[in-house]
Amino acid sequence: MNMYDLIMKKKKGCELTNDEIRYMIEGYTKENIPDYQMSAMMMAICFQGMTPEETKNLTLAMAESGDILDLSEIKGIKVDKHSTGGVGDKTSLVLGPMVAALGVSVAKMSGRGLGHTGGTIDKLESFTGFTTALSKETFIQNVNEIGIAIAGQTADLAPADKKLYALRDVTGTVDQMSLIASSIMSKKLASGADAIVLDVKTGDGAFMKTLKDSMALAEAMVSIGKLAGKKMAAIISDMDQPLGNAVGNILEVKEAIDTLQGNGPKDLEELVLTLGSYMVVAAGKAQSVEEAREQLKQTLIDGSAFEVFKKFVVAQGGCEDEVLHPEKLPVAQHIEEVVADKDGYVAKIQTEEIGRISLLLGGGRETKESEIDLTVGVMLHTKRGDRVAAGDVLATIHANDKEKLEQAKLRLLEAYTVVDNPVEEELLIKKIIA
Amino acid sequence: MNMYDLIMKKKKGCELTNDEIRYMIEGYTKENIPDYQMSAMMMAICFQGMTPEETKNLTLAMAESGDILDLSEIKGIKVDKHSTGGVGDKTSLVLGPMVAALGVSVAKMSGRGLGHTGGTIDKLESFTGFTTALSKETFIQNVNEIGIAIAGQTADLAPADKKLYALRDVTGTVDQMSLIASSIMSKKLASGADAIVLDVKTGDGAFMKTLKDSMALAEAMVSIGKLAGKKMAAIISDMDQPLGNAVGNILEVKEAIDTLQGNGPKDLEELVLTLGSYMVVAAGKAQSVEEAREQLKQTLIDGSAFEVFKKFVVAQGGCEDEVLHPEKLPVAQHIEEVVADKDGYVAKIQTEEIGRISLLLGGGRETKESEIDLTVGVMLHTKRGDRVAAGDVLATIHANDKEKLEQAKLRLLEAYTVVDNPVEEELLIKKIIA
Repeated sequence: MNMYDLIMKKKKGCELTNDEIRYMIEGYTKENIPDYQMSAMMMAICFQGMTPEETKNLTLAMAESGDILDLSEIKGIKVDKHSTGGVGDKTSLVLGPMVAALGVSVAKMSGRGLGHTGGTIDKLESFTGFTTALSKETFIQNVNEIGIAIAGQTADLAPADKKLYALRDVTGTVDQMSLIASSIMSKKLASGADAIVLDVKTGDGAFMKTLKDSMALAEAMVSIGKLAGKKMAAIISDMDQPLGNAVGNILEVKEAIDTLQGNGPKDLEELVLTLGSYMVVAAGKAQSVEEAREQLKQTLIDGSAFEVFKKFVVAQGGCEDEVLHPEKLPVAQHIEEVVADKDGYVAKIQTEEIGRISLLLGGGRETKESEIDLTVGVMLHTKRGDRVAAGDVLATIHANDKEKLEQAKLRLLEAYTVVDNPVEEELLIKKIIA
Repeated sequence: MNMYDLIMKKKKGCELTNDEIRYMIEGYTKENIPDYQMSAMMMAICFQGMTPEETKNLTLAMAESGDILDLSEIKGIKVDKHSTGGVGDKTSLVLGPMVAALGVSVAKMSGRGLGHTGGTIDKLESFTGFTTALSKETFIQNVNEIGIAIAGQTADLAPADKKLYALRDVTGTVDQMSLIASSIMSKKLASGADAIVLDVKTGDGAFMKTLKDSMALAEAMVSIGKLAGKKMAAIISDMDQPLGNAVGNILEVKEAIDTLQGNGPKDLEELVLTLGSYMVVAAGKAQSVEEAREQLKQTLIDGSAFEVFKKFVVAQGGCEDEVLHPEKLPVAQHIEEVVADKDGYVAKIQTEEIGRISLLLGGGRETKESEIDLTVGVMLHTKRGDRVAAGDVLATIHANDKEKLEQAKLRLLEAYTVVDNPVEEELLIKKIIA
């Protein structure tokens, strides 16, 4: 077997066998297959595609290229959730404690933010002392005792995917559905969960801009997971406006706490109830998603979800006082309003642009090495469909740099489209694949 | 401008501008663009193709990536001939002296053989003392005085093509018509000729196995040359059997001398008359190909072509006695016959296999480093269409190794297909593009 023949085979549109895919991924990981052959293969895949069987085999080969987490010491069915990334997406902060409060084990590996989307770990580090650098023992113990733990990716999970993604990123071979799906799923499979619920964002602020592409990605990932023997569900959710009202790390943490206390924005609450109900059913803690949904609502009303959140933050070194009194978390120096310049209805909020404004203010990372300012960001006071009068506050900007603040104000006003007539409501949950 | 964007542009099927192609080729030659990006681009080109304009721009960018030979000190219109390579193809040895005898300046860069096809330089080195390592001064002086000189490629001609070809060779991106055409033509354009006549072989022993592909390649090359301001013609000639009867270096040299003396095989003579007539017209030495053809025939009858050949070999250090008495050239130790095992008609000769048998005997190079045995090879005594009786000699094998001889005999018999009924004649000249 040699890589040249495999390139030619794929170029002609033939299906690669499992052995051939393993040979390719192992050879590439061990640097026996050079980048220039792999990039030719990736480009051939962009044109010829991959079958579900090939995609599953590629995913498993990448998942098994490094460590596979062993979570067998954790009681019960382990359920993981993955979001393809969006603006204002603080879902994990709310969802994890809610399902944990119902006895679902949440053993989560999370990442940091990059570009216009944020990361769960950055948000959690808003709490003084909070750390995701947990030993495996502490991680497992916390999940068993509290129900939830979130760790940074320290293990060598799916190194083949890491190497391959870096190559695809510079060779114009990122945008192929099977490759995207196998990249995400290889890390998820290596993380050791028994069931995976996917939050596939769709729209302007998402990686996938169209519903068609989001559906295709969701279906590809669900198919891989099922072929690999995992329980799977995917929710396609709207990212044509930010989720909730807060964009920026501390701002989002405060909103997450509000939501855990039953006072969150409706779209965020709706999304966590939907995602959560599939997680609870997958974990065998409810018979139906309807039943699970009622139980989850109860965790917000009776304070049990917030209680788990508090224990979880404290167990990972976070300051309890800040959890109980989020108003004590640091705030930005300058908080200024952006007001509507005409009467009308909010027809559109350029979502990726909102993420980029937060990035401009220092709330995100341009590159992996960037430092983050946790206090800055944007609070939206109006969302799509809202009626506004000239002079009404559309949003407030939280900034520590006067110059960037001025730029952000201009760009934020530009990001809003206000029209004369009422606009049709868009569904938050576009589709559910289970 | 950056290579990533160019890859994406080509991947989407858009046309690259001249500036973009120059940026890519210059960057790649200077190693600012890595192999893994270029191989992704090459694969994208395999799927999306290139327009004639892009192909011309790529060719010129590669031609100009190194030295361009300055042949301005040579009198008259410089005409080059290029063959895509075949088995038994000693055309240049006969054609060069013939057109030179009519006053056409032949300043030729030639290569060595690789794989199942031979090279002009190897063949000429059959003459004791012959060298192609000429100074530029000697090269030009010989062309001006004798009418012909053949040099090895010492100059840094089209280094971008050399680097790119090596990459394509290992990434499954060789078989794309525009890339093949631009690779050949970049070297031809860098060689400085004013007019180029192409001998595009078609059939089993050729690089292009089908007439359709050979036509496409010929048209692509003629189009590039014309867009680059050169006079162009292409002859598509048959390579479904070896050209002439001799395959192997010294055997072919002897056949070339026979042909120069008017006693050559009819197919070889016909091909050199056809190619030559277009060269003579391109050089302005005749008004029509018919007129040129008559003049060329005369050079074989009056001995002027052979006279030029003799002077040319001697001027490059070759032994005059061997030219005048080619029977004095070394011969192989073992010369054995392969006979027909049934009555019938020769329907097919596996031409690439004949080349590979010569290679097996030591007459060609498996790799660039291989040493060549100039004496070995195959003499065909029957060609396609010939009637044979069982026991008639099909061919003789010239070998220096008993074991290889036996293998060669078996394979040679296998390479011949003898059928019961007469077979239709195949045209030698399939098509002329001028």
